[in-house]
Amino acid sequence: MTRFSDPQRIQRLIEGLDRFTATPGEGTTRLTYSPEFRQAADFLRAEMESAGLTVREDEVGNVIGRLEGSNPDLAPVMIGSHFDSVPNGGKFDGQAGVVAGIEIASLFRDRGLMPERPIEFIGMIEEEGTRFGGGMVASRILAGRLDMGSFDALADDDGITMAEAMARFGLDPAQAHRAVLKPGSVYAFLELHIEQGPVLEAQGDDVGIVDRVVGMAQLKVTFRGQAGHAGTTPMNARRDALVGAVAALSQLPDLACAIGQDAVLTVGKLEVHPGGANVIPDLVTFTVDIRAPKDEVVRTLVERSRSVIEQAGGNGLTVKVEEQLFVSPVLLSVELHSTLTRHAGTLGLKSRTMVSGAGHDAMIMAQFAPTGLVFVPSRNGISHAPEEWTDYEQLARGVDVVFATVCELTLPEGQRRIE
Amino acid sequence: MTRFSDPQRIQRLIEGLDRFTATPGEGTTRLTYSPEFRQAADFLRAEMESAGLTVREDEVGNVIGRLEGSNPDLAPVMIGSHFDSVPNGGKFDGQAGVVAGIEIASLFRDRGLMPERPIEFIGMIEEEGTRFGGGMVASRILAGRLDMGSFDALADDDGITMAEAMARFGLDPAQAHRAVLKPGSVYAFLELHIEQGPVLEAQGDDVGIVDRVVGMAQLKVTFRGQAGHAGTTPMNARRDALVGAVAALSQLPDLACAIGQDAVLTVGKLEVHPGGANVIPDLVTFTVDIRAPKDEVVRTLVERSRSVIEQAGGNGLTVKVEEQLFVSPVLLSVELHSTLTRHAGTLGLKSRTMVSGAGHDAMIMAQFAPTGLVFVPSRNGISHAPEEWTDYEQLARGVDVVFATVCELTLPEGQRRIE
Repeated sequence: MTRFSDPQRIQRLIEGLDRFTATPGEGTTRLTYSPEFRQAADFLRAEMESAGLTVREDEVGNVIGRLEGSNPDLAPVMIGSHFDSVPNGGKFDGQAGVVAGIEIASLFRDRGLMPERPIEFIGMIEEEGTRFGGGMVASRILAGRLDMGSFDALADDDGITMAEAMARFGLDPAQAHRAVLKPGSVYAFLELHIEQGPVLEAQGDDVGIVDRVVGMAQLKVTFRGQAGHAGTTPMNARRDALVGAVAALSQLPDLACAIGQDAVLTVGKLEVHPGGANVIPDLVTFTVDIRAPKDEVVRTLVERSRSVIEQAGGNGLTVKVEEQLFVSPVLLSVELHSTLTRHAGTLGLKSRTMVSGAGHDAMIMAQFAPTGLVFVPSRNGISHAPEEWTDYEQLARGVDVVFATVCELTLPEGQRRIE
Repeated sequence: MTRFSDPQRIQRLIEGLDRFTATPGEGTTRLTYSPEFRQAADFLRAEMESAGLTVREDEVGNVIGRLEGSNPDLAPVMIGSHFDSVPNGGKFDGQAGVVAGIEIASLFRDRGLMPERPIEFIGMIEEEGTRFGGGMVASRILAGRLDMGSFDALADDDGITMAEAMARFGLDPAQAHRAVLKPGSVYAFLELHIEQGPVLEAQGDDVGIVDRVVGMAQLKVTFRGQAGHAGTTPMNARRDALVGAVAALSQLPDLACAIGQDAVLTVGKLEVHPGGANVIPDLVTFTVDIRAPKDEVVRTLVERSRSVIEQAGGNGLTVKVEEQLFVSPVLLSVELHSTLTRHAGTLGLKSRTMVSGAGHDAMIMAQFAPTGLVFVPSRNGISHAPEEWTDYEQLARGVDVVFATVCELTLPEGQRRIE
């Protein structure tokens, strides 16, 4: 088996980045624009510079290292992923793809490879949507698919808007539009990501070459009732917001099971106000995350969820359902899929064509530039948890596939085959 | 109608105390040992001193003002309630009873009344259990019904134990045992409290004279599953802690409705971890508050709740049910009930014998000394909410009933009838 990348060097970067968490010992928690996020951005900048790149932070906080091409006027190949995290998540989600980029830059430097076409390596903000909701914010900005007014509308749980958080982070929200990429300014976008599911491990495959990403929707649901004392309000005189919410929640997962077709539905965030053991809740908010490979399945599940939720809102409760995100299923570049698959074969790796059940920045970038996405195995299929794990050896195999593809896309003709 | 107390003076005290909230404009939030709690304690001390009392804070932070008797060796009458609050609660719950005590002290001073038997006026900590769980902590300490080891076991949501919080508040947890009252050291305990329900208002009554308090239980329930990515984990491969919790939650209120007999069941606090919209929850905790006038009804509801919850715990979920509180229904003093009712009549007030659906410090103190509890009306029956309201005129009528009773219990024979 041919081997390019260095698992130990990759391990050092993953572990180095993982020091920057708000929950040491309890997984990676790195919210966009947090102090840990600042430290991680500084770490990425230093490592990119060590790998020979010219580094800048763009106007929204993405960290971008550039390897100049002998023809600087050519549109660059862009490689990367995000470095924010879910609460108490793992150290590979997103971060593996950012580290893959730095390892590839190191391979270019070590081997003295001089690309004709420039290469840009990017670490992106706010893919998870943990802090401001919605998700894939960096790629939506880069691809010109996010209204700049959103920075005042998106807010975290403390009511801090994204614009305010940007300002505190040292950015100028009024300059954010400068981060939007010009049409045609990216030749190809490549992302490596952990699978976050059980398939590659179960099948004994080395890499998954993704050909499409499922469609997804995210709802924000609010039930409002009337607070009161738990001991003195008869059962039949209550307007308990949690009782209404539970009536909806008890039906939602079954909607996905019933429709089948690989649809999934998750309620991951739920808050009860005011939250006293002896107080009837007056306010419950929760999210509904819906995904399926087919657009019409996502749309049907959104409508059925809305119907179930609104029916649970009688008896003096008011209900609000807001659609925070709707993304149709996305096809990735057929050509890049073919190139990545060919290189996996050349390298002696077992590859598989896959549908991604998770949203990734590649899903958004695919609507802007030809895009490829490579999965590496996740142990036990676990992700978004501290137990998230990918062997560094397996991660290195994924990096090799991307490296070989980048060489083909950027090196002068006649030098594109690396051994 | 005879009138002793001054509604405007009562209003000034209620509003003065209400400045000390962590949520200005959104109701009263005053957790035990918080900065607002410190300010409120200082306010009470100053007001008690103005009313002519000798004030001390006991070893757990209760504020106690004493009006010395001409016979200081007699066991005092104790009057009071608590001054902590639920999150975003009202300014009358507990506080009305503390203010009632200060108003009564002022009446003694204004009228130059010299009691034979001492009177102690108390403002108590942690009745709601909002910060450390369980509730009625001060009265349980005073009555010698709380193991001192609990101070290390009870902890708030940030993991700060009650012992740690006491130390930060300037108290010495090792001295807490000194707050326990000696048997026979209280002649009678009297509490005034808002009804927190709709009965008095609906019936047009002035005061409720409580003859017993419902029994209550509080459970803490924990569901544990496996976190994972919301997009990549098939529905049939999930161990979603929230799905299990909802299966239980959807059945719990009906248990109380089905058993009838004025039983109520409330889930007021529920937390979902890790709380990301795209993360399958691995941990859900919630409380179950159960109340009924009959002991066996509470016990049956606890068992049925436990059964429903444990059945919801299959499919790879583990479930834990902890009983945090169990208090049997409590009968108050028949003699004090009779005395309070007689004085209400003499004052020309409409009174009603009532069962209390809420737990009160009086419930605990009744197991230590003869105890009486007087309710005043709550507008629309609402409590534990910012809208909580009692007209000051109505509050003053309740104070009058307690004042007349205290006079009978403490003044020298022949001077006990006040006009």
